[in-house]
Amino acid sequence: MANIVILGAGVMGSAFSVPLVDNNHTVSLVGTHLDNNIIEEIHETHLHPNLKVHLADAVTPYTYDRLGELIPNADLVVLGVNSLGVDWAADMLDPLLSPETPILMLTKGMEGNGKQLEILPHNFQSRLSTKVKINAIGGPAIAGEVAVRRHTSVIFTGPDQNLLDKLAEWLRTPYYHIWTSTDIVGVEVCVALKNIYALAVGFVSGLLEKSGEVENQAKMHNLAAAIFAQGLWETAYMVEKMGGQLHSVYTLPGAGDLYVTCQGGRNSRMGRWLGLGVPYSQAKRSYMPDDTIEGAELALAIGPTVKNMVAQGLLDSNRLPLMQAVINIVCADVEVQIPWDQFFAAGKQI
Amino acid sequence: MANIVILGAGVMGSAFSVPLVDNNHTVSLVGTHLDNNIIEEIHETHLHPNLKVHLADAVTPYTYDRLGELIPNADLVVLGVNSLGVDWAADMLDPLLSPETPILMLTKGMEGNGKQLEILPHNFQSRLSTKVKINAIGGPAIAGEVAVRRHTSVIFTGPDQNLLDKLAEWLRTPYYHIWTSTDIVGVEVCVALKNIYALAVGFVSGLLEKSGEVENQAKMHNLAAAIFAQGLWETAYMVEKMGGQLHSVYTLPGAGDLYVTCQGGRNSRMGRWLGLGVPYSQAKRSYMPDDTIEGAELALAIGPTVKNMVAQGLLDSNRLPLMQAVINIVCADVEVQIPWDQFFAAGKQI
Repeated sequence: MANIVILGAGVMGSAFSVPLVDNNHTVSLVGTHLDNNIIEEIHETHLHPNLKVHLADAVTPYTYDRLGELIPNADLVVLGVNSLGVDWAADMLDPLLSPETPILMLTKGMEGNGKQLEILPHNFQSRLSTKVKINAIGGPAIAGEVAVRRHTSVIFTGPDQNLLDKLAEWLRTPYYHIWTSTDIVGVEVCVALKNIYALAVGFVSGLLEKSGEVENQAKMHNLAAAIFAQGLWETAYMVEKMGGQLHSVYTLPGAGDLYVTCQGGRNSRMGRWLGLGVPYSQAKRSYMPDDTIEGAELALAIGPTVKNMVAQGLLDSNRLPLMQAVINIVCADVEVQIPWDQFFAAGKQI
Repeated sequence: MANIVILGAGVMGSAFSVPLVDNNHTVSLVGTHLDNNIIEEIHETHLHPNLKVHLADAVTPYTYDRLGELIPNADLVVLGVNSLGVDWAADMLDPLLSPETPILMLTKGMEGNGKQLEILPHNFQSRLSTKVKINAIGGPAIAGEVAVRRHTSVIFTGPDQNLLDKLAEWLRTPYYHIWTSTDIVGVEVCVALKNIYALAVGFVSGLLEKSGEVENQAKMHNLAAAIFAQGLWETAYMVEKMGGQLHSVYTLPGAGDLYVTCQGGRNSRMGRWLGLGVPYSQAKRSYMPDDTIEGAELALAIGPTVKNMVAQGLLDSNRLPLMQAVINIVCADVEVQIPWDQFFAAGKQI
């Protein structure tokens, strides 16, 4: 039995308490500054209002002002904030973390500093004054399904195989299936970029609505599948470019996580508005003002850096036409146009 | 303008006439011995009864007894029968084909002779007395969408790049996007095996129905995504084992075609029955007696050979747990059980 602190009481952080409790760990679920209402409701009823699941009594909810008591006693800190909460979390945790306390990140993302791109675990480390043991989880895991013990398959990644083995041992259940991989770059590039490509697959439902019905009621699955495949192909390029392994692309972190993210959720909902022809800034403001759309946030986070790197020849423009299209759609309110002629090898022979 | 004969008037063969006509080719659509009603209806009304689309006047329907007149004048023969029609098609075409007439196969499949596996284009060649130029199409292309000019992205594959370029030139339209690849083994292994793995993804809808609703209405997308990823991982193994290129796995033939096949269709419908717990032979007999279920047909075609090859150590059992599970489900009426413990590397570290 370990003492585990989850920081972030959104759906993913909270759902993650379920396999932890099933392994008899002591779980402290700590809300961020944005989670006060959630923590209050869990405190009173143990019902998570967004997850719509009752959490076990063994999960104790806390507000973040209690972090100072909790972190020093933790055997593991799980980072469950969304990509916009990483700065805040680093500030909160930095004074409290010990080099011995492993971190397990549920948060996905990448960062760009104008010159180069970085995976989120490395970026998070750079915001801390202490060197800590950062690990991360990738793979297809919709929170609401984890919370009700639906079969879920994930990869734990980090630099230290022994630690990964220990964490997997702590967290594995008959429904929460865990594999381990030391390819942290490959896994993290895949699970971050899937948000951009799921947004692009989401365009299709909007394009379909806009195009109207046809005599045989055909949908646009061929289009969605081509975007899906183009997304994986571009992911493969980025993984290899950043020093990761191709293997991660056609397993859980790449293909698996992109597949699940295309089944609905906020990227898909925003993708539909964009496909319908609504400019990103207007769609965000009018229809999803309170939602974090991870694909769009990632496009904003890495867009300028990707453009610079392409301009300098550090990234090959021909290998990233869809990513660049999504960046332009999100960052510059460009209308959705699928860049067919640039897909795969623009030379047509692949 | 070329003279093009399509053999097989099912949905895929017939839909393929649309980009051909849009390129001003002369198209003869020849029904098999099972297509007489379709040919008659096209003849009378030009409406394809299953595709539910009117074919262009430039498409001339024929019964197969006219092949003797048509094939010798063809610049290209398109094979659009299903996998069960390949024997018949080889018998019909063999006396008529010239070494100069290229063939383009829409049909997918693999064959096993008990000792080794073979991709369908090679198997088809082995049934002919003349050496012909066999090419094939892979990638996500639902027929009903091609027929109404929805954007569709495919790969033409074959041994001769110049011929592939010529065929692509003949057939490309603003909605029918074509790339070429000489990795015929990689493409064909992907597009065949996707039927087996789409059947497996299809289990999930049945498993979900059987499990009943939960408090937060969670689905089982995590499970479907894990099966999807496992399928691609096994496909990668088979592609490399048979001499193809990994590249085909994470682009249109692998990821793209598997994605589109999971969006519905006969594999998915059968997968649901199996997931609900109905044995394959009973589900086939009771619910889908007149349907060709490509995933099940492939399991039947290669199952015994795969088992022999695994027993002899020619295939690594650890790399194919899902394929073996599907083979047992289809060939031996075994109940659906997801072999979690064998997924990816059974050693858990990948």
